Amino acid sequence: MPLHPPYLLFLGDAPDSLAAKTATGIRHWRPEWCRGQMRLPGCAADLGLPDMTLEEARAADVRTLVVGVANRGGVIGESWREILMKAVDMGFDVAAGLHERLTDVPGLVQAAQRAGVQLHDVRHPTGRLAVANGVPRSGRRVLAVGTDCSVGKMYTMLAMEREMKTRGLKATFRATGQTGILIAGGGISVDAVVADFISGAAEALSPENDADHWDLIEGQGSLFHPSYAGVSLGLLHGAQPDGLILCHEPGRAHMRGLPGRQLPSLDECIRLNLECARLTNPDAVVVGMAFNTAGLSTEAATRLLGQTADAYGMPCVDPVRTGVGQLVTALVGRFGS
Amino acid sequence: MPLHPPYLLFLGDAPDSLAAKTATGIRHWRPEWCRGQMRLPGCAADLGLPDMTLEEARAADVRTLVVGVANRGGVIGESWREILMKAVDMGFDVAAGLHERLTDVPGLVQAAQRAGVQLHDVRHPTGRLAVANGVPRSGRRVLAVGTDCSVGKMYTMLAMEREMKTRGLKATFRATGQTGILIAGGGISVDAVVADFISGAAEALSPENDADHWDLIEGQGSLFHPSYAGVSLGLLHGAQPDGLILCHEPGRAHMRGLPGRQLPSLDECIRLNLECARLTNPDAVVVGMAFNTAGLSTEAATRLLGQTADAYGMPCVDPVRTGVGQLVTALVGRFGS
Repeated sequence: MPLHPPYLLFLGDAPDSLAAKTATGIRHWRPEWCRGQMRLPGCAADLGLPDMTLEEARAADVRTLVVGVANRGGVIGESWREILMKAVDMGFDVAAGLHERLTDVPGLVQAAQRAGVQLHDVRHPTGRLAVANGVPRSGRRVLAVGTDCSVGKMYTMLAMEREMKTRGLKATFRATGQTGILIAGGGISVDAVVADFISGAAEALSPENDADHWDLIEGQGSLFHPSYAGVSLGLLHGAQPDGLILCHEPGRAHMRGLPGRQLPSLDECIRLNLECARLTNPDAVVVGMAFNTAGLSTEAATRLLGQTADAYGMPCVDPVRTGVGQLVTALVGRFGS
Repeated sequence: MPLHPPYLLFLGDAPDSLAAKTATGIRHWRPEWCRGQMRLPGCAADLGLPDMTLEEARAADVRTLVVGVANRGGVIGESWREILMKAVDMGFDVAAGLHERLTDVPGLVQAAQRAGVQLHDVRHPTGRLAVANGVPRSGRRVLAVGTDCSVGKMYTMLAMEREMKTRGLKATFRATGQTGILIAGGGISVDAVVADFISGAAEALSPENDADHWDLIEGQGSLFHPSYAGVSLGLLHGAQPDGLILCHEPGRAHMRGLPGRQLPSLDECIRLNLECARLTNPDAVVVGMAFNTAGLSTEAATRLLGQTADAYGMPCVDPVRTGVGQLVTALVGRFGS
């Protein structure tokens, strides 16, 4: 069930802009879908969008109210419930990527049924999934893989989608996590499906397509993260990527959430990802790398990206600093448009 | 929540003994827990246990009625419901490993609450799981891994548990699938947990223990099965095995459920499993192999097991034909008792 833009972004009482990072991501990647923001008293986040009431949003043809804020524990704030209920009663769809479900807010399901609108708990997959079959499908695919969690996989794939569309290529970002789903207007939170269906979810997410169409599939976790590697492997097998982009944050002290546990080397990460990818796509290659160098000076970042590109014979970019043009060029150079 | 033996094994109207293979496994591995069987008219399976009514089972101190039969689709037969309800009303716990849940049988949950008994849907994990942390824990662990699904991992681990106990070693079978859980009296169906928690489930399943205690952990799937490899990898990381036993069925034409897809070589399977296992246990080794040679003649099987053992420098057994004594001897030889 796809989401319906345009969106009104609900920021609640976000104490800072970090708490509204989901909304920030949507605003950044889908500005054309974002008609306005709604803020409660005390909200310290500001997306630079018009502040709107629900009535104003309706007049602006908004179809979905998106909860773009996360508070501690991922729960739905008491003060939000009245607004969500009113939105539903007024005929808006509502979408959220929180742990707590919209469908668990007392009365909201019934109100949505009465109003004929949808509630989207994008962190919690609902559709029926099939077990993966590993059969190749037409169309081309890129998957972001990483040395760790939270190293820029979603950002890199969204940047590549934008760059490829600018060049007139057929490209679709495929979301595998909640923020990505709100940005894409659809997708599957693969880490929330029943374990038997990880690869099946990846296959469903990226169905067969035109031979010259590219899916840019958001990665999750890392084959080297002891908490989440099963998700990463299932996604890698189901995605059947032709090209991998290796994402990394230089200088990170340890695997996310696990002090003392070192990150893998780029070599290890390339080798294991390729070996596993080739189970379902024997021709898989690593096309390039995307580093998050926010912690480095411009000089140090430029030097590191250049040295890495030389050492591995493939482009190494920082999507924020340098853009992803070189990755797209390398992809097209290898596979054609 | 552990299951409570002794069991009465419910065979329903099983059309043949294969339909009652769950009950057959429990009877084989836990004869001391099996007081009787209950069969409906038309049942063609027979475990060689006394046929019992619920009243007779109560007199025989049975505590749990175990649904040991699977019909097409894994549903709970209409004709079974009355018996399940009566069992609950009489104070028996009820356990089943079907797709359809006992808790979805109309009225059964309420009846269980009234009677103060438990319903165990062992295919559907219920406890709260934590995300894995990858921290080493005391005690020793063996995990069965495989070239494919359904190559004898559960059987091998149960046979090793029995052999180790016979030798006076501290050993516990740890179940990761529904039949294993009914045999062990507890465990977690790791392929049915939410994907983020696969490794966390494996860690919870095999908690820290005495330094000389062995957990024998039932494996699931294969790193080389495109449908289920994510489950296998998460289990491998969470189990943190000291020793792996590689399970294989020689001569299998293709990966289970995927005609045309070849099995990996033993070399590939050893290498990738060890590489991945060493993320959470750098000292992991393959201790031996267990082949299901049911499809071979005695001569051919003996020759193959011998040749494989010589080639790899480790024991290669068929748990049914030869027993698993050599695997236990190799384990003790390497790690001490």
